[in-house]
Amino acid sequence: MDYSQTLIPSDTWSSSCTQMGALRLPYLTSIFAVSSGRTSVFPRGIKQLSVRKHTSAAKVLAKITPATEVAPAESSNQKPPVQEQGITPRSQDFNAWYLDVISMAELADYGPVRGTMVIRPYGYAIWEAIQDYLNIKFKETGHSNMYFPQFIPYSFIEKEASHVEGFSPELALVTVGGGKELEEKLVVRPTSETIVNHMFTQWIQSYRDLPLMINQWANVTRWEMRTKPFIRTLEFLWQEGHTAHATPEEAEREAMQMIDVYTKFSYEQAAIPVIPGRKSRVETFAGADRTYTIEAMMGDRKALQAGTSHNLGQNFSRAFGTQFADENGQRQHVWQTSWAISTRFVGGIIMTHGDDIGLVLPPRLASVQVVIVPIWKKANEKNEVLEAALSVKDILHTAGIKVKLDDSDQRTPGWKFNFWEMKGVPLRIEIGPRDVSSRSVVISRRDIPGKPGKIFGISMESSFLIPYIKEKLDEIQSSLLDKAITFRDSNIVDVNSYDELKEAISQGKWARGPWIGSDEDELKVKEETGATVRCFPFDQPPGPKKCLMTGGPADEVAIFAKSY
Amino acid sequence: MDYSQTLIPSDTWSSSCTQMGALRLPYLTSIFAVSSGRTSVFPRGIKQLSVRKHTSAAKVLAKITPATEVAPAESSNQKPPVQEQGITPRSQDFNAWYLDVISMAELADYGPVRGTMVIRPYGYAIWEAIQDYLNIKFKETGHSNMYFPQFIPYSFIEKEASHVEGFSPELALVTVGGGKELEEKLVVRPTSETIVNHMFTQWIQSYRDLPLMINQWANVTRWEMRTKPFIRTLEFLWQEGHTAHATPEEAEREAMQMIDVYTKFSYEQAAIPVIPGRKSRVETFAGADRTYTIEAMMGDRKALQAGTSHNLGQNFSRAFGTQFADENGQRQHVWQTSWAISTRFVGGIIMTHGDDIGLVLPPRLASVQVVIVPIWKKANEKNEVLEAALSVKDILHTAGIKVKLDDSDQRTPGWKFNFWEMKGVPLRIEIGPRDVSSRSVVISRRDIPGKPGKIFGISMESSFLIPYIKEKLDEIQSSLLDKAITFRDSNIVDVNSYDELKEAISQGKWARGPWIGSDEDELKVKEETGATVRCFPFDQPPGPKKCLMTGGPADEVAIFAKSY
Repeated sequence: MDYSQTLIPSDTWSSSCTQMGALRLPYLTSIFAVSSGRTSVFPRGIKQLSVRKHTSAAKVLAKITPATEVAPAESSNQKPPVQEQGITPRSQDFNAWYLDVISMAELADYGPVRGTMVIRPYGYAIWEAIQDYLNIKFKETGHSNMYFPQFIPYSFIEKEASHVEGFSPELALVTVGGGKELEEKLVVRPTSETIVNHMFTQWIQSYRDLPLMINQWANVTRWEMRTKPFIRTLEFLWQEGHTAHATPEEAEREAMQMIDVYTKFSYEQAAIPVIPGRKSRVETFAGADRTYTIEAMMGDRKALQAGTSHNLGQNFSRAFGTQFADENGQRQHVWQTSWAISTRFVGGIIMTHGDDIGLVLPPRLASVQVVIVPIWKKANEKNEVLEAALSVKDILHTAGIKVKLDDSDQRTPGWKFNFWEMKGVPLRIEIGPRDVSSRSVVISRRDIPGKPGKIFGISMESSFLIPYIKEKLDEIQSSLLDKAITFRDSNIVDVNSYDELKEAISQGKWARGPWIGSDEDELKVKEETGATVRCFPFDQPPGPKKCLMTGGPADEVAIFAKSY
Repeated sequence: MDYSQTLIPSDTWSSSCTQMGALRLPYLTSIFAVSSGRTSVFPRGIKQLSVRKHTSAAKVLAKITPATEVAPAESSNQKPPVQEQGITPRSQDFNAWYLDVISMAELADYGPVRGTMVIRPYGYAIWEAIQDYLNIKFKETGHSNMYFPQFIPYSFIEKEASHVEGFSPELALVTVGGGKELEEKLVVRPTSETIVNHMFTQWIQSYRDLPLMINQWANVTRWEMRTKPFIRTLEFLWQEGHTAHATPEEAEREAMQMIDVYTKFSYEQAAIPVIPGRKSRVETFAGADRTYTIEAMMGDRKALQAGTSHNLGQNFSRAFGTQFADENGQRQHVWQTSWAISTRFVGGIIMTHGDDIGLVLPPRLASVQVVIVPIWKKANEKNEVLEAALSVKDILHTAGIKVKLDDSDQRTPGWKFNFWEMKGVPLRIEIGPRDVSSRSVVISRRDIPGKPGKIFGISMESSFLIPYIKEKLDEIQSSLLDKAITFRDSNIVDVNSYDELKEAISQGKWARGPWIGSDEDELKVKEETGATVRCFPFDQPPGPKKCLMTGGPADEVAIFAKSY
């Protein structure tokens, strides 16, 4: 087998062959790792962060290291020589750029099993920020956290017909436990509707037990063939909300409420201007009556389904017999919802805001909002500069700003500038000997690269500095959102015919047009253009419309796009 | 097969047969569930919470419902009639009491797969309180959170000799993924030392990369035969810290630091006076040089290992080749630690503080610290009482106290008193019409049952009430700890001979005595008495000692006890 061929897939992270486990890519980290014999001041191999035009590191190494399903631990002792290269420019190769950012910003690494990932502290901190916000919102809207077992009897999955059809190709099965073959194989949860309903039947007796509104933060497993860090991994982290209600109206309100929570989160915290809407029948969750979604436009203009909320109707309650006695003592099946956001969202943040230099984090989700880089040349300058830097750090920390002082001796200020820019830290504060004399600092905005983003002579006094930094962080947050909205809106084309749709998609844009096409029409569009219906947006243009495909009268426009 | 026989095991929650999956117990909830045709004001079947002397609910139902490995969902439609009974008195049957508390206080339920549990909101909230505290402490001590995949190649487990010996009988194996047999079977993590080391080899190059200090909050799977909710389940939740250091001294300091964090948490938050110490060789973690432990005495005087911290030495770094270049450029293996606390701790809280009435929660870990029960008889009293109750609730809530107002119409105040006492809420506030007139409330302490725990005429004014309630919560917190210390100390016997040890153990107590016995001596004690060395406590009596078994000079005393 010719590894050099198969190891340069277009969608790089995934094994490019369809049969599981035959191939996997080398570790991202090993690409940049220092060779073992060398003591370098750049232990993670980041020597020069300048934008370069040549082949991406991922591709270079793909030719060097043969891969096996489970890479031997010893491979780390056979490190390739340092590649003196930075991040592939986003404009040159979006996918290579994405993988480079994940590797060099230390967000994640491959796990030893194909398609799994290790979420490193800097990447996990983004997920923690997402959790912190959503967890409060879920509780405010009346949900309680709990935990369901991840092992689900195989027979459960089979109970809801469309559910088993949707999930059975992706299941991981435990067949041996404690050294013995199991009588019934167990599914490692791909989602929990089945086990949730099994338990709900025990907790729900009367209308007084409703609504029952719960959430869990958990890992889930889906045996995906084409994987990509954060976006689609064999195991991922998510929250899954599950609710049961006495009426269909209440379930519908809940499903809408939660997609609204996700939308607000996306706009206000992640600065991602998602488009909320309803999925087409074809794209509806396996087991739902209606699926609501938030669709985000990535930097390469592909769509990312960033969160979903399902109105499950009575599909699972009928399959599992989840009933309650209503006020008249009549037994009825409950009406249900489920809704989820996953670590995929972290990938969405990277691909929305990142630029040629690397990661760009929205201040509200950044674990480091401000990095302080002290600058000195002579030994006698060092003390006073560090002292001032530490004092500024303390001032900001006390004010609740997430601040880091990079006071290491081993790197130059220029290296640190590049490093923290690549890591996407929203604001940098520079303090040199002259700043110490003038009791002022220099500030650089990550979202405005180079000189235009620099502001000189900002007073160190806490009464001035604290509100100033907070204001700048807010400005950056707004500016990222505005930029993303402009980008999104300039890449959505209103279309009124299938030809116009094809033209828009072939230009890499999203097409928005009136649609009452059949499931077959929708599949035809997918086959011929690669685009799918992302959603019928909630925000609809007024007036009568004619379906772009059939010419018949249409109530709604749909958005078509290629997607992750 | 005679189900009625096999379904009344002594250690009730576990399947009593040793072959996996042949039997399981009925659901705890179904025991108390209302029959489907009946509309009851007690939807969860808690009709009367008085202490009773007859058979426990768990045992009663064990005779009613036949069990299968995977109980059919439809079983919930065949509910047994309501059992008019409360919690088995702790003094009568500790194990039945424990299961009753877990069921009736709605802490957890059985999952559909034998040995798994569903952690319900009221139980999960205790775990969240544990997480909130520890997560901050871990970060303060320099650790970062991250996430490792749960699927570990089988070959990894085999690399560290004692590790594979310790864990291989307990493994759950994934052998099928995406519809295909896997080339290498995957272990569902029982603990993560192996995969952590696999990744550490890629992140650690030089001494500058050390110490590397991380933690993850995750689920783990161990195929246990004898299970018990919270205490030992097939899947459980925990945190596992993993660190790598340049020197053995630093690793030792870290292992000690973390057992100290656990000890402080136990005393200050959980009010559990654990005894920290070192495990014997026999009881040391599979793959560690030294294991430190915190040992807690439960209400039945059995010991619970409530948290552990391991000095792993170079065992895993040698097995996985986790090396760094020291300051002289020499390659060395890193020195490591790992440490964990799990949902087992929730079981420890129940079994330390609970009493005949039910659960008793330490205020610092209670999700409801204060419950307000409004009392009215006539309709015209209702409004003013509810208004006052709501105002008191707002006052306490604003002050950061976790308060719940039980204003439901469907239960009597007496029922509510019993219910919230059973749920272990530390403080109750009662407000009736006369209290409204006098602008005062009545307070009841959960830790002092009945009249002695009642305090009348407490002013509703926020300037008085807030500090008063905070002080009472602190008093309860201290009082629970003091009570547990007294209980612990009155049940530890100093012994100087094997006969004295046997006598103490046969009385159900802990035996503490000088020990330099061999591994064989230790196993003999276990075989003959059922007790194991829980630890060599850090706190040692001064002076020369003679081993209780061999008579030889001993440096240390060990604690022996029966344990969970």
